[in-house]
Amino acid sequence: MSEKVLINEQLINREEASFSFDDRSMYFGDGIYEVIRIYGGFPFQMEMHMQRFQRSAEELDIPFDYDVKQSLTNSLLELLKENELNEGIIYVQLSRGSADRNHLYERHTEPLIFAFTKPMERPQQAMSEGIATYLTEDERWLRCDIKTVNLLGNVMAKRKAADHDCQEALLHRGDLMTEGSSSNLFIIKGDVVQTHPANNYILNGITRQLVLDYIEEHGKSVVFEPIQVEDMKNIDEAFITSTTSEITPIVELRGTVHHKLTVGPLTKSLQKRFDEDVVKTEQGE
Amino acid sequence: MSEKVLINEQLINREEASFSFDDRSMYFGDGIYEVIRIYGGFPFQMEMHMQRFQRSAEELDIPFDYDVKQSLTNSLLELLKENELNEGIIYVQLSRGSADRNHLYERHTEPLIFAFTKPMERPQQAMSEGIATYLTEDERWLRCDIKTVNLLGNVMAKRKAADHDCQEALLHRGDLMTEGSSSNLFIIKGDVVQTHPANNYILNGITRQLVLDYIEEHGKSVVFEPIQVEDMKNIDEAFITSTTSEITPIVELRGTVHHKLTVGPLTKSLQKRFDEDVVKTEQGE
Repeated sequence: MSEKVLINEQLINREEASFSFDDRSMYFGDGIYEVIRIYGGFPFQMEMHMQRFQRSAEELDIPFDYDVKQSLTNSLLELLKENELNEGIIYVQLSRGSADRNHLYERHTEPLIFAFTKPMERPQQAMSEGIATYLTEDERWLRCDIKTVNLLGNVMAKRKAADHDCQEALLHRGDLMTEGSSSNLFIIKGDVVQTHPANNYILNGITRQLVLDYIEEHGKSVVFEPIQVEDMKNIDEAFITSTTSEITPIVELRGTVHHKLTVGPLTKSLQKRFDEDVVKTEQGE
Repeated sequence: MSEKVLINEQLINREEASFSFDDRSMYFGDGIYEVIRIYGGFPFQMEMHMQRFQRSAEELDIPFDYDVKQSLTNSLLELLKENELNEGIIYVQLSRGSADRNHLYERHTEPLIFAFTKPMERPQQAMSEGIATYLTEDERWLRCDIKTVNLLGNVMAKRKAADHDCQEALLHRGDLMTEGSSSNLFIIKGDVVQTHPANNYILNGITRQLVLDYIEEHGKSVVFEPIQVEDMKNIDEAFITSTTSEITPIVELRGTVHHKLTVGPLTKSLQKRFDEDVVKTEQGE
């Protein structure tokens, strides 16, 4: 059976899928996306992803209403079933659509929605042993709260990290840490958990939001303030969160600041709590 | 005869052109571009555009060497001839190419080069009467010196300007003017011409560079410093430059600052000088 992809409301064979020569995502990065995790054949926190997708669309003035959201959710579930995906992700993108190339978009342009699935295992080794991260300047635009495909700042930082044998880039605007190139950043110092507030400088990750709930369950409080770059030398634990990285401990900092860490107790405890939600999803709860 | 587009080294019919389902320009805006003006069937300042194209490619670590540049130049000239374009533009884009979607790009990915032509007249009315501009915050990333297709900051500003009946958005980072959403900004106060220095906050426009030469020919000096937003109320002349706008006077400021201007003598004089170069191009000189 051939792998299917979704293009607008149609499931088609992947090898037959292509994009219009006039699509604005190609010329302006004029689109938004989501990556939804699949555990045991079931989507994880799909409604949160779809709500964020809708918010991103609204912020970019791309038509996407409640009915389209409901219909898209059904199409994605159909795609998932058709491709018999057990462990992996659904990637879904909304492009403003095809039009004569012009910075000025017209509001009557018909949007394009497309999606594909990809098998992907949980990053067990990284989650247990931790990763090395590379601190570098955050060069992205000032609307990082919108999940757009204008991702060059993220892409270039990720490459720089890899070139320094690190698995993730941690970004800072001047003296203040923001987030990872495709993840959110948490640090722990003594009894304090700290992360960047969910404003225009970071993407408010779904896993970030879940972790904040878990921390509250633990009876701990969170300081929502940007972390000073220099303070990264004086922390006890640190981890990143994302849909595909889940909760991944940081064991080394390179680049702007150099420091070594171990996988700490709070990080492990949050991972255990996250696993409970994964198991529930796998069991179809 | 059908309109042709260039895809890699092939001229194909436009209606048969499409993009791969895995192209990174679509998912990350991972590409660069140029827009080259055609006057009387001849390209204007093509070598300057191709050199900037090469620099953009180098900054993004996309393979594009001297031989590819020479070969692309020939292909673009062939496209121009094939489409019998007299007045208009060539749009050319270099995408990092097709690969499994991943922030981390691989250096062995085969790039995609594509181009199309579009008829376009010179903006005579805007050049003689001037345009209204809308001042708004510059939300773009910190590498505006690279001509990438991560253009959402430009796109959203341009739409905002149009929604306020303005033809261009003028951007400022905090208190400092940078440039237009698809143009460079010059102001004149008394005997002083001022424009933003060509650093990471602006794209060093080809028309900007020509105008700087013309100003030097006029025996005037230029102050390369960002213009204070508040100073925009106290200027004598202002104009934008770009490949398609050429030298277009600003007659009204709205948004952050409100001010009215007239089309001034230096602007007119620079337009006249620019026309001389256009005529030379049209005559194949």
